[in-house]
Amino acid sequence: MNMSRTRDTRERLVVIGGDAAGMSAASQARRLKGPDELEIVAFERGHFTSYSACGIPYWVGGEVTEPDQLIARTPEEHRERDIDLRMRTEVMEIDVGRQRVRARDLESGAESWTSYDKLVIATGARPIRPDMPGVDAPGVHGVQTLDDGQALIDTLAHTRGRKAVVVGAGYIGVEMAEALINRGYEVTVINRGSEPMSTLDPDMGRLVHEAMEGLGITMADDAAVTKVLTGEDGRVRAVATENAEYPADVVVLGIGVRPETTLAKAAGLPLGSHGGLLTDLAMRVRGHENIWAGGDCVEVLDLVSGQERHIALGTHANKHGQVIGTGVGGGYATFPGVVGTAVSKVCDLEIARTGLREKDARRVGLQFVSVTIESTSRAGYYPGASPMTVKMLAERRTGRLLGVQIVGREGAGKRVDIAAVALTAGMTVEQMTALDLGYAPPFSPVWDPVLVAARKAAAKVRAS
Amino acid sequence: MNMSRTRDTRERLVVIGGDAAGMSAASQARRLKGPDELEIVAFERGHFTSYSACGIPYWVGGEVTEPDQLIARTPEEHRERDIDLRMRTEVMEIDVGRQRVRARDLESGAESWTSYDKLVIATGARPIRPDMPGVDAPGVHGVQTLDDGQALIDTLAHTRGRKAVVVGAGYIGVEMAEALINRGYEVTVINRGSEPMSTLDPDMGRLVHEAMEGLGITMADDAAVTKVLTGEDGRVRAVATENAEYPADVVVLGIGVRPETTLAKAAGLPLGSHGGLLTDLAMRVRGHENIWAGGDCVEVLDLVSGQERHIALGTHANKHGQVIGTGVGGGYATFPGVVGTAVSKVCDLEIARTGLREKDARRVGLQFVSVTIESTSRAGYYPGASPMTVKMLAERRTGRLLGVQIVGREGAGKRVDIAAVALTAGMTVEQMTALDLGYAPPFSPVWDPVLVAARKAAAKVRAS
Repeated sequence: MNMSRTRDTRERLVVIGGDAAGMSAASQARRLKGPDELEIVAFERGHFTSYSACGIPYWVGGEVTEPDQLIARTPEEHRERDIDLRMRTEVMEIDVGRQRVRARDLESGAESWTSYDKLVIATGARPIRPDMPGVDAPGVHGVQTLDDGQALIDTLAHTRGRKAVVVGAGYIGVEMAEALINRGYEVTVINRGSEPMSTLDPDMGRLVHEAMEGLGITMADDAAVTKVLTGEDGRVRAVATENAEYPADVVVLGIGVRPETTLAKAAGLPLGSHGGLLTDLAMRVRGHENIWAGGDCVEVLDLVSGQERHIALGTHANKHGQVIGTGVGGGYATFPGVVGTAVSKVCDLEIARTGLREKDARRVGLQFVSVTIESTSRAGYYPGASPMTVKMLAERRTGRLLGVQIVGREGAGKRVDIAAVALTAGMTVEQMTALDLGYAPPFSPVWDPVLVAARKAAAKVRAS
Repeated sequence: MNMSRTRDTRERLVVIGGDAAGMSAASQARRLKGPDELEIVAFERGHFTSYSACGIPYWVGGEVTEPDQLIARTPEEHRERDIDLRMRTEVMEIDVGRQRVRARDLESGAESWTSYDKLVIATGARPIRPDMPGVDAPGVHGVQTLDDGQALIDTLAHTRGRKAVVVGAGYIGVEMAEALINRGYEVTVINRGSEPMSTLDPDMGRLVHEAMEGLGITMADDAAVTKVLTGEDGRVRAVATENAEYPADVVVLGIGVRPETTLAKAAGLPLGSHGGLLTDLAMRVRGHENIWAGGDCVEVLDLVSGQERHIALGTHANKHGQVIGTGVGGGYATFPGVVGTAVSKVCDLEIARTGLREKDARRVGLQFVSVTIESTSRAGYYPGASPMTVKMLAERRTGRLLGVQIVGREGAGKRVDIAAVALTAGMTVEQMTALDLGYAPPFSPVWDPVLVAARKAAAKVRAS
């Protein structure tokens, strides 16, 4: 093979962002096209590649002992696959017209332009950091990156006091509450909303509130943090809301994230109402046939509401990367959208949801019936059977399933997958009543809790 | 209200069989029609109603301490709902032409005819009892009814030896093996087939074989029992196959069941190739508008193969009863069919299947691709992540999902529900690759094992 000729004609793929979506895309493209056909250059501004940010709470909590366990593939492993990975190098600008990106080496400060034939934007999300006094004080931590996790763990190792405040009561907040309890902290969770887990309806969030209090966590709902108070040493000593002050030796910010699309916006690429990049079904940025985007920086189509949403979740990022890499490599794949499935736990409490909440349904003009049932994870007589609450929404008249929320103990969370598949298939709750789900006493009551909810919802639909 | 006039005009429903299907039907009919509209007479030849036969292994094993826990509703509770329940009364004949049944009081031997306007046949199944010498010896037990379970428990209480032989390695066999291990027995499982769990393909059954051996169970495969050997006291002392003899202080027969359709056959009602009653989608016996049948005595439509099957499972029996009772009560409901989902466990091993095995697919003319993958129940780095093997079959060319089999530990079994819903919806494995399943490190790897299998199957379909 004539290498010089090959080098001249091969295409160059540039990837911005070295985590799940970006490196999955790069790896899949490499599987389909060898280095003689496709050059791959990837820029990552941090110290790590391809890691599980979702695993950080368990590293902080001690279930995971080494950060290396969270890394699916190191920079060296990517380079062995002929990916020219440039670590600690931040892309500062995308020049769409001239098909090039300007990158800065964060160690030396040197900048240079790299041209591309194909571009993948996987810039991820950035944590929401409230703009208030003291938020940058030592002892206040975000938990978005492995670097953040390491900084928090260092702080915990050097903090004598055992009071922790978690700001935010979404997934990150409740998972961090568990982590800090596991490390022996007294934990207070401060939450703007009326109940924790605002991805659930408030009546289901209430169950989470009660269970978290049962775990010894102090729940401060309807509380907006106004400032972080510091001691004489400059470190955090308390968190203040409008009405109260919570002593804190360490503060974790778990308020949520926004798409990191500064570069994309400056380049004039299309953003949606949530600030994320808009793509087509093949994950190409709309209007740009040679630019793909995926992971936490894009908006995704919600198949139930028909509208775009922003969901930062590793499982979507990995799927996006797979689809993008297939497209870049000349194959065919699409990401049709999401139904909004999420599952989480705090100690032995499992929390799951998929589809629309009541307010989501109202917002998009859907009328619905809603039912809530109590059941158990196993046959009632089988040891370890634990209570489970299932809420189900179905469209009025059509009976189409719109959403399911589950709060329970062991065996509750992953039951949401039944509803996730049914939502994807557009099933009605009446159809769901006949689902042939796995039954044996150690696994389920004779009517699975999801079927109990479907039966009740179907009856209500008939009367709607 | 003029009671005498009401009594004259009301219809009579007769139910044959007082367990899941029969009493669910009776109860649902009663919900829809009060005693002034509908008289309900139910015959049960045994001592119990509405019990969980599926729970018997856990009662024998000691997880369930009282048989009462397995009874969903007692005869008295049914009678309080105005159901004229006649216990220990066996129906001897159905006279379809004159719309009446002949029943015998098993205590007194007295017989009488009862006429019906509507009839429900829920005669259940009878265990297969091999016709061989010694099978009726003391110490040899079936486990079909609560009476059987009590007899076995009594034997175990009075048996000094600790050697148990289980004949059959299907669900009942493996569950009884667990029960006997939990009671401290040395257990041998004798199995006609090449591997245990013939509801799985042999390659997946092999995993069950290995795991059961790992639990200390002696597995005798490819072994047909030829006789039961008895001691001088007339009690069982060993089980013989063609090639070997297995000492036994107690023997449990778990070979499976056949539909109990003796009455139906004698009455000229239509039976299928598996010996079960054939019904329409509303669970009416074919050709008979006023006769319904459900539970273990009927055949059900397999939605994947398009053919009838016999599946004795409490969850189906309860659904049938619900559908029948609705129809009897003047409402509308159907049982569209099954996809063949089943889940079981032996100690910490979880075994699940849905859809078609390789030989099922071949038999009905389907060509397919088959993949098997290894994954874990949780993110690999999360404590308690346990290995799981998933086998997936998809139709050649169309890529339609045909079946899934899973063998693993905690968290493996109920994952089969994902495939059960996808089968019901007629999804392709390519569509399944995009399923939005619940992901968080304590619940799943970033690619759920079912998605890993779907991706591999989809790739194979593309090459098929």
